[in-house]
Amino acid sequence: MKQDNTRKIIRFEKGVFTEKEDCVVVEQPATIKINGKEFITIVCSPEKMDEMAIGFLVSERIIPNYKDIKDVQVDEKTGTVHVTAEKVYPFFEQLQNKRFISSCCGMSRQGFVFAHDAMIAKEMTEVRVTLSPENCFQLMSAMADSAKMFKQTGGVHNAALCDANGIIISRMDIGRHNALDKIYGYCLLNNIDVRDKVIVFSGRISSEILLKVAKIGCEIVLSKSAPTELALSLADQLGITTVGFIRGDSFNLYTHAKRIIDTT
Amino acid sequence: MKQDNTRKIIRFEKGVFTEKEDCVVVEQPATIKINGKEFITIVCSPEKMDEMAIGFLVSERIIPNYKDIKDVQVDEKTGTVHVTAEKVYPFFEQLQNKRFISSCCGMSRQGFVFAHDAMIAKEMTEVRVTLSPENCFQLMSAMADSAKMFKQTGGVHNAALCDANGIIISRMDIGRHNALDKIYGYCLLNNIDVRDKVIVFSGRISSEILLKVAKIGCEIVLSKSAPTELALSLADQLGITTVGFIRGDSFNLYTHAKRIIDTT
Repeated sequence: MKQDNTRKIIRFEKGVFTEKEDCVVVEQPATIKINGKEFITIVCSPEKMDEMAIGFLVSERIIPNYKDIKDVQVDEKTGTVHVTAEKVYPFFEQLQNKRFISSCCGMSRQGFVFAHDAMIAKEMTEVRVTLSPENCFQLMSAMADSAKMFKQTGGVHNAALCDANGIIISRMDIGRHNALDKIYGYCLLNNIDVRDKVIVFSGRISSEILLKVAKIGCEIVLSKSAPTELALSLADQLGITTVGFIRGDSFNLYTHAKRIIDTT
Repeated sequence: MKQDNTRKIIRFEKGVFTEKEDCVVVEQPATIKINGKEFITIVCSPEKMDEMAIGFLVSERIIPNYKDIKDVQVDEKTGTVHVTAEKVYPFFEQLQNKRFISSCCGMSRQGFVFAHDAMIAKEMTEVRVTLSPENCFQLMSAMADSAKMFKQTGGVHNAALCDANGIIISRMDIGRHNALDKIYGYCLLNNIDVRDKVIVFSGRISSEILLKVAKIGCEIVLSKSAPTELALSLADQLGITTVGFIRGDSFNLYTHAKRIIDTT
């Protein structure tokens, strides 16, 4: 399977918009089945999925001994890893009822599959907010200034709710999705309309970050980092404007370019 | 609650080891209870946990309407957020049986709580491998060279299994834990002893990355990024040597310094 996808993007550099082709990293769900039974779905880079399944199952002691794994077959078409095993961790059924979310990216959304996500994410058909390239640079720079914690310890993600005039509220968290949940929680608590606002985010725009932005109901997401291919195809469908790699005097405009308007 | 913890570390800079105090980011589990029933545990930065719980529950439509949330109380002592709500998403019970892991950090280890992790992580009491500061710089630099994907798309994490002589195997993935699982899977498939090896990682050393290193059975983890406070206290307990912020001619040595030896 391909690690990269090329796609047409709009590059803004030194005051000029140009169409170009760009590489975007691939992100794909892999479902591990043990002895025919669906066990877990992990979103990953679609290479070496056999190694990933073995390493995951043994390190987490789902299958405590590697020798109990009798066969591993990857079906690349369906994104399924079929594992045949003799012994499975006996407490597994009990543990399956416990739920745990790491801080690492914050969220794994147990219990929420793409079907559910697609159902509750809002499609943005209107244009309630537009930004100039200058706004994009200013907002990214304002968020960097507000990220004092990051400067101190280098360990947290930052997110901000903005409009064209600047930051309304910013939150940081060790878990990237947590920062967005905190922003949304603040808006609900304080009755702030999010629909004409913009999310500025310090980290990578993965499919889950994109979905979270859609669930909150914002139309534009800005980041200094890269988006994934899955995030961009969701953004295409959901009508969200995605701007990445905002650094210096340049950025990449990936989807729904209509909301970024050069007014100079 | 404190966002930062200061702790004593050993700084290596321009050939010299010095003891100093450093800020380390705090990472903490927060358990959300809805109407008295345990719902989910999210590892997060321990501030604004009320906002996080509200934003999470409403954006994920566990509680579809904010007005159905009647009360939110944070018990900082136990790390519990008590939510009183009128309506909970009716399909929730069904969805709770599905399991899903995002790529974002890859892993959320549903079904795996700290008790279980602690049980299966191996304590490293011996010293099977040592590195010189020069080894640390060389290994980090070798991994950066091998990370071609990152250079192309800026969207993946890299991990490598090494010894003092260099990289044995490196894997990249959109999910940080997946890269480590792929390495471990490769070792199992190819009968490679991991116990005298070193993990080099491109991203932050969170509690879950540290636990994964311990589950695999490695004694040293190197990163160009920051560790969290929770990761470091686990490293203290599990006997793992943690080296972070390996950049230029300096790094921070956080735990079990005995395995980093200046031989010059």
